[in-house]
Amino acid sequence: MKLIRFGEVGSERAGVQIDYKNFDVSDFVKNYDEQFFESNGIDRLKVYVQQNLTNLKEVEANIRLGSPFARPSKIVCIGLNYKDHAEETGAAIPAEPIIFMKSTTALVGPNDTVVIPKNSQKTDWEVEFGIVIGQKASYVEEANALDYVAGYVLHNDVSEREFQIERGGTWDKGKGCDTFAPMGPVLTTKDEIPDINNVNLWLKVNGKTYQNGNTKNLIFSVPFIVSYVSQFMTLLPGDVISTGTPAGVGLGFNPPIYLKEGDVIELGADYLGEQRQEVIAYKK
Amino acid sequence: MKLIRFGEVGSERAGVQIDYKNFDVSDFVKNYDEQFFESNGIDRLKVYVQQNLTNLKEVEANIRLGSPFARPSKIVCIGLNYKDHAEETGAAIPAEPIIFMKSTTALVGPNDTVVIPKNSQKTDWEVEFGIVIGQKASYVEEANALDYVAGYVLHNDVSEREFQIERGGTWDKGKGCDTFAPMGPVLTTKDEIPDINNVNLWLKVNGKTYQNGNTKNLIFSVPFIVSYVSQFMTLLPGDVISTGTPAGVGLGFNPPIYLKEGDVIELGADYLGEQRQEVIAYKK
Repeated sequence: MKLIRFGEVGSERAGVQIDYKNFDVSDFVKNYDEQFFESNGIDRLKVYVQQNLTNLKEVEANIRLGSPFARPSKIVCIGLNYKDHAEETGAAIPAEPIIFMKSTTALVGPNDTVVIPKNSQKTDWEVEFGIVIGQKASYVEEANALDYVAGYVLHNDVSEREFQIERGGTWDKGKGCDTFAPMGPVLTTKDEIPDINNVNLWLKVNGKTYQNGNTKNLIFSVPFIVSYVSQFMTLLPGDVISTGTPAGVGLGFNPPIYLKEGDVIELGADYLGEQRQEVIAYKK
Repeated sequence: MKLIRFGEVGSERAGVQIDYKNFDVSDFVKNYDEQFFESNGIDRLKVYVQQNLTNLKEVEANIRLGSPFARPSKIVCIGLNYKDHAEETGAAIPAEPIIFMKSTTALVGPNDTVVIPKNSQKTDWEVEFGIVIGQKASYVEEANALDYVAGYVLHNDVSEREFQIERGGTWDKGKGCDTFAPMGPVLTTKDEIPDINNVNLWLKVNGKTYQNGNTKNLIFSVPFIVSYVSQFMTLLPGDVISTGTPAGVGLGFNPPIYLKEGDVIELGADYLGEQRQEVIAYKK
């Protein structure tokens, strides 16, 4: 099943995507939030959709899509989790996962505008395979870590490299600016992906392909990551862990290439759909 | 005014503290959350309390206190913001504020148990003066930054030093373990603190004083911090910024002193009340 949320910012309604058509299920589901996931919402929704398949109301084709879930309690990110990306940034291959956090106020829909922050010169892109947690997870073993996963989501981990690297402190400073976390269009439930270790990911800017990776090249695998993060903090239903980006970010070029007003970012992943963002500069 | 929340974990009710007595205002306020703060809740509550002063129902004396606000969208922390603390850790005085983030799942009440995480050898304490945001704040100027503040809260920024410093990546790994953010007992509204640049903070372990600081020694002031953080992420009503800890943490001793099962942490700050936590080891 593929979950979507549609409608204006802040008043998105729940839907499902079937054969690339979007249907309204807001009569059945109030929101895809912590309460939904922890109350076995996905299974209940499956039954509802099966029983009402012929009656579901289709959503108009051009409606805005929001993030396919409500604002989570946290967005945890894994850094330098593809060997080729670690190399392009000049960093060592990490001995264990690097964890940083993204302010959840950065969350936007998959096709919303990306805003270059005030005083930013180095706004960059990162296509990522995101994990959406389905059950509260604390000290989970790798062997059963996927039991705690609801599904997966495409994420553009937009990053300001000066804020992230040159301004002191942790990476968090360059990761949580408004609009820096486009997610969606869909939350694809885990049963729909035959092999999470073989998912292609790509990203283009202005039509030119910059990133072209596959989750088979992850240094730390999805179940390892879920288990690992859960050793340091409790993951709540609806929380997101973004698994890192493959090579091809702007920072990796010589000279680096950064986003500017008017650029168009397109990205996608097998099973997870595609995003398209226009880039604008911050205006007061 | 001093806001409290009381009752069992997960079902806390709203109250106010007047002359060290706690009163139930849950008939008027559902929760101290984003919606409460952004809808001018503090002003509305003041009127309610004035009008109902003689009818307010007192809460039983020994009831558990929760954090004085609901789980915020984020807990942002400032690192190394007292010169003496930067020196004791061997770190340079930061040129601009260090930002890191604490998983909001770490939030607990002021007198709840602090749990030493599984595999932890280096769990440490940090008394801090916390800022609670009252209005959505993005690119706020220092001159009017306090307009965006609801009030202040005492915070024990419990930290696992090995996870924070020795395990790669950002400090976030050692800051967000469950029970690592006792907050409260009260949220003191900003009008009740005559000078936020002169607030004493102290912390004892097993009756011995380890920290004894004052916000006059903050490297970066409260309005500067609010303005600064708002350049990198939007602060929502109810969000917390913790302003850093003065000298005297366990890491600063030679050899370092870390928490062990059975320890008792007591801490306090002028205007913000006192906390008391018993320390236990994680048990499955």
